[in-house]
Order: sequence, then C-alpha cells, then structure tokens
Amino acid sequence: MTGKQTVETIVCGDYVVTMNDERNVITQGAVAIDAGEIVHVGSKKDIERNFHSRQLVDGTDQVVMPGLINGHTHAAMCLLRGFADDIPLMEWLQDYINPIEAHAVSEDYVRVGTQLACWEMLSGGTTTFVDMYFFHETAAIAVEEIGMRALISASMMDQPRNDAVDIDDSFKQAEHFVRDWSRRSATVVPIVAGHAIYTLKNEHLVRLRDLAKSLDVPVHIHVSESQFELDFSRDSYGTTPITHFERIGLLDVPMIAAHVVWPERDEIEILARKGVGVVHNPTCNARIASGTAPIVDLLQGGVKVGLGTDGAASSNNLDMWEEMRVASLMQRAQTLDSTVLPARELLKMATSHGAAAIGMQQSIGKLIAGMRADVIQVSIDNAHHLPLYDVESHLAYSSGSRDVSNVFVDGKHLIRGRAPTTIDTNELKLGIQRNRERISSFDSLSA
Amino acid sequence: MTGKQTVETIVCGDYVVTMNDERNVITQGAVAIDAGEIVHVGSKKDIERNFHSRQLVDGTDQVVMPGLINGHTHAAMCLLRGFADDIPLMEWLQDYINPIEAHAVSEDYVRVGTQLACWEMLSGGTTTFVDMYFFHETAAIAVEEIGMRALISASMMDQPRNDAVDIDDSFKQAEHFVRDWSRRSATVVPIVAGHAIYTLKNEHLVRLRDLAKSLDVPVHIHVSESQFELDFSRDSYGTTPITHFERIGLLDVPMIAAHVVWPERDEIEILARKGVGVVHNPTCNARIASGTAPIVDLLQGGVKVGLGTDGAASSNNLDMWEEMRVASLMQRAQTLDSTVLPARELLKMATSHGAAAIGMQQSIGKLIAGMRADVIQVSIDNAHHLPLYDVESHLAYSSGSRDVSNVFVDGKHLIRGRAPTTIDTNELKLGIQRNRERISSFDSLSA
Repeated sequence: MTGKQTVETIVCGDYVVTMNDERNVITQGAVAIDAGEIVHVGSKKDIERNFHSRQLVDGTDQVVMPGLINGHTHAAMCLLRGFADDIPLMEWLQDYINPIEAHAVSEDYVRVGTQLACWEMLSGGTTTFVDMYFFHETAAIAVEEIGMRALISASMMDQPRNDAVDIDDSFKQAEHFVRDWSRRSATVVPIVAGHAIYTLKNEHLVRLRDLAKSLDVPVHIHVSESQFELDFSRDSYGTTPITHFERIGLLDVPMIAAHVVWPERDEIEILARKGVGVVHNPTCNARIASGTAPIVDLLQGGVKVGLGTDGAASSNNLDMWEEMRVASLMQRAQTLDSTVLPARELLKMATSHGAAAIGMQQSIGKLIAGMRADVIQVSIDNAHHLPLYDVESHLAYSSGSRDVSNVFVDGKHLIRGRAPTTIDTNELKLGIQRNRERISSFDSLSA
Repeated sequence: MTGKQTVETIVCGDYVVTMNDERNVITQGAVAIDAGEIVHVGSKKDIERNFHSRQLVDGTDQVVMPGLINGHTHAAMCLLRGFADDIPLMEWLQDYINPIEAHAVSEDYVRVGTQLACWEMLSGGTTTFVDMYFFHETAAIAVEEIGMRALISASMMDQPRNDAVDIDDSFKQAEHFVRDWSRRSATVVPIVAGHAIYTLKNEHLVRLRDLAKSLDVPVHIHVSESQFELDFSRDSYGTTPITHFERIGLLDVPMIAAHVVWPERDEIEILARKGVGVVHNPTCNARIASGTAPIVDLLQGGVKVGLGTDGAASSNNLDMWEEMRVASLMQRAQTLDSTVLPARELLKMATSHGAAAIGMQQSIGKLIAGMRADVIQVSIDNAHHLPLYDVESHLAYSSGSRDVSNVFVDGKHLIRGRAPTTIDTNELKLGIQRNRERISSFDSLSA
C-alpha cells in the first residue's frame, strides 16, 4: 500500500482539459476528488500511483473538463419554454410574460421550474448558474436539495410582484436571505439583484448599492440590454446605464451585469476598471432582437466576460454549448473576421472566464487542486467527434449537451451515465404538468 | 379482418408534423409506409382501423416529421473536422484545405468520409443531402449501400484534381455518371456541379450549362459566397455572378445555388423568376466570415430557400437543427426584428422548402400519401422539451440531433432506437483512423 492516499473518486479521460493555461490538455489524464474538492489533476498513471479511490470513473472515449457556468438565467422560466415565440419584444413582455407571471408565479411554480432548469442544465454539463427570479428562498431550497451550484439572487424591482408586499419588503427579504444562507449551503450562494435601470427608481438603485456593500455580496442586474433601456436611461438621467451606475457608485460593489449589448465605447474602459463581470447571452440577444454585443471589443478592453443562456422563455433551452457556438458565429458575422473568439476563448467564457465574471474564480472554472470538484465527462465516441485532431475544437464546435455522460458538483455525482441521481423526474413531470395547466388556462383567458 | 390493407410499417407519434399546410399537426397520429412510399397519414385510430402492419413503431413521447434535407455539403470533408479552425479564409484555403486535399483525397478517403457523414447525418435525422466533392462515383456507391437519399454531383473545376486527368475528363466522367446512375438507385440521384465562377473558365461554365440541359439534371454551384468571389466576377465579367450566369443562360437549367450571401437587390428578382433554389448555410457563412445572407429578403422575393451545413471542415458538424437555430438568430440580429423566420418557416426551410430548393418537392419534404417514406421520430420525453405548448416551437428551437430516435429513408429503417442499421461503425472507425493518420502526416510535413 506504500502510503497511497485514499480519495472518494477518480474521474479519468482520454483527455483532461483543465482550462489552466499552464497545462491545458492532459492526454490519458485523471482527476482525484475528495470531500468535494479537487485533490490532484495529472496523468492517469501518476494518479493511479498515488491514490486509491472508492469510485473509479472510466475514461475511455471521454473528455474531462470543468463544469460549465451559466452566468445569467431565470431558471423557473423553463415553465414558459415555447409559450410565446416570435412576437415583437414589447408585445411579448407586456401581453404575455408580465401578465402570465402575475397570474401563475407561485412557490410551487418556482420550485418546479427551478428543478426542471437544474435537470436540463445538469444533463448538459452546466454545474453552476446565476439566477434572478421570484421566490428566491424557494429556488435556493430546490437547488440545495439537488446539489447544484448557484448564485441565487434576492431581486428588487418597483413593480408589484407575488412574493413581496412592496419594495421595502423585498429589501428586507433580501437582507434576511443573504444573512441566513451565507453559510447554510455548500453550493448555494445568496446574492442580491436589481432588475434593471428602468424598473427601479434611482433611490432604490442607491439602496441596492448600500445593501450589497453592507452584506458584501455582488449585485446581479440587466445592463444596457436594449435600445429601449438606453432611451429610458437618457431620458431619466441624461446618460446611458453604465455611466449612471458609475456616477451613483453602483459599480463600487462587485457587479454581475447581464447582456451589455450596447455599451458606449468609453464605457468599456469603465467596465474593465471597475471589474464588472459581463455575462453575454448571445441566443437571447439575437432571438428577441436586442442586438449583438461587442464581445470582441469587451475582451480586448480587458473586461471579464462569461456566457449565459438567459431564461428559457427567450432562449427556449438552457444549453451552454449552443451559447458558445452562437457567440462565436455572431461575432464573426459582425466583424467579418474568421479568427475572433477561437475555440479556447469560447471554452474559457463558459468556464474560467465565466467564473471570474461571477466572482467565483477562486473556487470553480478550472481543474486545479484545491478548487471545488465541479467536473464533467464528455463522450467523444460518436460520429460528430470523428476524427479528432484538436480536442478543444471539438468541445467548442461539435460537442453538445447530448454528449455529457457524468457530472460532479462539489464532488457529488449528480449525473451518472446520463441519468440524474438527485432528481425524481417522474414526480417532477407531474409538477410540470400541473403548472402547464395553470399557465395554459391563462392563455385561453387572453385569447 | 374486414379488408384491412397490410403495410410494412406504421410509425406513430403523439404529434405528427406533416409540413403540409392543410393539416400540419396531427395529435396522436401515425404514418403508414409500404414499399418505400407513404401510404397514409392520419390519426392513429384511423390508421389502426384501416391498416395492418408488420412493424409498429410506438409513438409515446415522440414526434413524427419528414426527414431533414441538407441542401449543400461536401460529405467526405468530415475527415477534416476540426483540422484547421479559426484561421483567416484565404490562408485556410491555400495553406490547409487545398494542399491537404491534393495530398490526401483518394477513393478510400471519399468512401470513408462519405460513410462518416451519412452516419452523422442519419443519426441526427437528416435523410437527404446534396453533395459536391471528388470521386463522385465512390460517394454514390457509399450512399447507395447505406440507403440514404442524396443528390451526388459530378463536379467541374479547372484546377488539377486527383480524380480526373483534366477538365475534359471531368466532363466525360460527369456525362457517364449521370447516364449510368439515372435509374440505378432508389435513393441516389446523379447531378452535375460547377465549383464556382472563380474556378471555371467561362467556356466551361457554358459547357456545364449544355451538359445539364442535355442530361436534364440540375447544376449545383457555389454562388456569390464571398466578397472575393464578387471582386473576381466584376474584374472578369464586369458584373456579379448571378447576373453573369443569367447572361450566359446558366440559369435556364435548374440550379441549386449554395450560399448566395451577397446577391444584389435586383438579382433577387432574377433568382425568383428563374426558379433558382438557394441553399442557405448560416453556420459556415458566419464561421469563415463570408457574411450574413439576406434570407428574409430572398423569401419575401419569392425565392425557394433551403438549408445546408456545408462541409464539416468549415462548420465542424452536419447538424441541421443547429442550422435552423443559427439561421433564425442571424436574421434577427441583423434585421433587429424578433418576428422574422419563425418556427414553422425554419422547419419548412429544413424540409418542404428545402425539397423545393433542390427540385425534389414531388417526392420528399412533407408527409403526404404518395411521397417517398423519408420519416423521422423525435423524442420529446426529456428536460429540454418540457413543458410542451407548441410542438413546432420545440422542434425549431429546442430539439436537436440527440433527440432523433428512428429514421426511415425510402421506407427503410436506417436508424433504429438511435443505432444505425446499415453502417458497421467499428469497421468505419478503422477507416477513419487510417485516413486521419494520412492527413496528420501532411500536417507534420507542413509544420
């Protein structure tokens, strides 16, 4: 036995893609996991020499890599997948999304919708997401029970909502939620959010800044998503959202800014200097015709850029592989330069850069000893991965959710041989059907 | 028994999406298939009342629809998947693709590459493709053996090539191929192709027109793909490719035009009037930064528009579901209109419109009695299809290759429970490895 260390799990792969610049691809590699942490990353031989494991996950025709990080979604909106497509943006919001949410959103809706989102994301290799929706505590409990990693926002907006009496109540709930959950879960991180500049009075934006500062948590918020938002900001504050946020000190707290489709040129420098994390949502931005974010410029300007799916009401699925592909294609079509956002850059946006954009770069996004064990295995034994010259090219341009075979979050084996281990999908389907009926009943009222 | 008709196969589905405008979606439907033909499409009850079948394919949690039509690819280029990504276009062509093809393309390469492409496409629900590459007879035999449907081009270009002594030889081979194969196969249709305006002298474009006319087959050709091509055409002929082709009568034969990224405004009318089928390749056009084709304008102008993947050297996979999604997103990002290319339009481009674009609308692209039985089943019993409000939305925006469970081409069951029935994948993998080594050896020479 000669002093071998015993660990819970060793995950092997024909290739281990660490996303660590120093040793990015290890051929015939393995990752040793114990107590939720990555203990060692190296060659399979090296790991077998030094470790015993209770579970050995075979690596034949598999790639091991960090779990994907979905930096912006509204998880429970999965229940509105395909409910109202191909409709002009304002009509979509005002005649469909807002009234249906007022009608249907409940604790049951959020629990079921969040579980469905976790099922879809985990199955596709996403291990962490940033959530902004209603009934944050219900969402947090659902995620904690499944074991997925998430930053769950307690969010603020001036509009009436089903989960708070008024905005004072929302602020109170947020403070309580962050204090209560700050050490409660190994995987759920409580944060705060503001919906957007056009749904929060200035005094509430300022109050949000103070709350985030006092709780020492990031603020998640939609930023410069649409021309509508820019017009609103110019009308209200004489300037664009990023500049206004800087003026009122909202960028002095860590910010996770979703979309950022329309930054002014000089605002890119502000975003870099203030360390704002930008989450790019290419599918949603195109789908509801918000525009194409200047991602190449943001990256060149030193801004931390991650990737997100947004909610399934506007992107129809929560597939981070599609987001990588669409991000690349959109930037190339816009710049007419076939070299921008190459494979490794896309993978970084979905993993290590994504972790940095949400302030989690110390614990996730790379396979390095000491980081949390959020690890996925991707099958490459199929037609669309043959032949293989460059594993990063295949991951960025040909792999998909369908290829994810095993998923570990915080060392726990949440997807085993493509099947979820902590989700009762039959029970969940009943809940989805129950909510679908409630949502459809609204549809018939409005029709 | 009361006079029930016996058929080979009945394929059932919770939904049958016929792509027939009169009765597009049938709930609890079925398709009866016999002797390669669709015999009846209707409710499951209706079909069970009137038909016996030797094989009944269960429809629980399944959608039945026409097979997808990939209107433009270079199938055997699958062997170059991921070989040279993220490189400027001309460098990519001149330093990688052209020399590697001169070095590596052989009958073995085309047989193996075409088989790999068929495996990938069939697994993802594509039942028909249009091919333009070298060693057309080898490709035709490979496709015929597998049983997939394809229009295989015998192609012309002035450059030296491994499968012909000179262009006279190519023309002779093309004539022989079309005559020989015109009645030889139930699924392989021989056609002719010219590579592009910049790789064929004018006299050879004219000769191609005459050949197609005499053989009564369409011409497949790359058209107005890049600014390079437009510059070449203006320098050589004082006008753009479509206008030049009209002047020399090349549009008087049926044309399957790939790409068409840069038509002039007045050329859209020419394309419509001449009945040119346009095949849109959104992933490739973005990926190698050719531009964004004006698909909304082409459709409004009455042009027949289908979809294609192009070869895997420039699109990395042959996934028609991704092409639907990317087509929609690109058009919306460019027009800033979230209503263009809605779900049904995308599905049509991949099926019925695609059939029209390649001149096959009488036999494929819809589920209608009398048409050939190219039928696929798509599983909807998974997270990314829940809940379901609108089956067409899900097919266009959330389904993917991974969901395809059964595939019939010309009535033959080519994918059964996700597994190919006519491809020996172990044998094929040996061939892929053999060619991969030959290709990689070139890589080391040039490095």
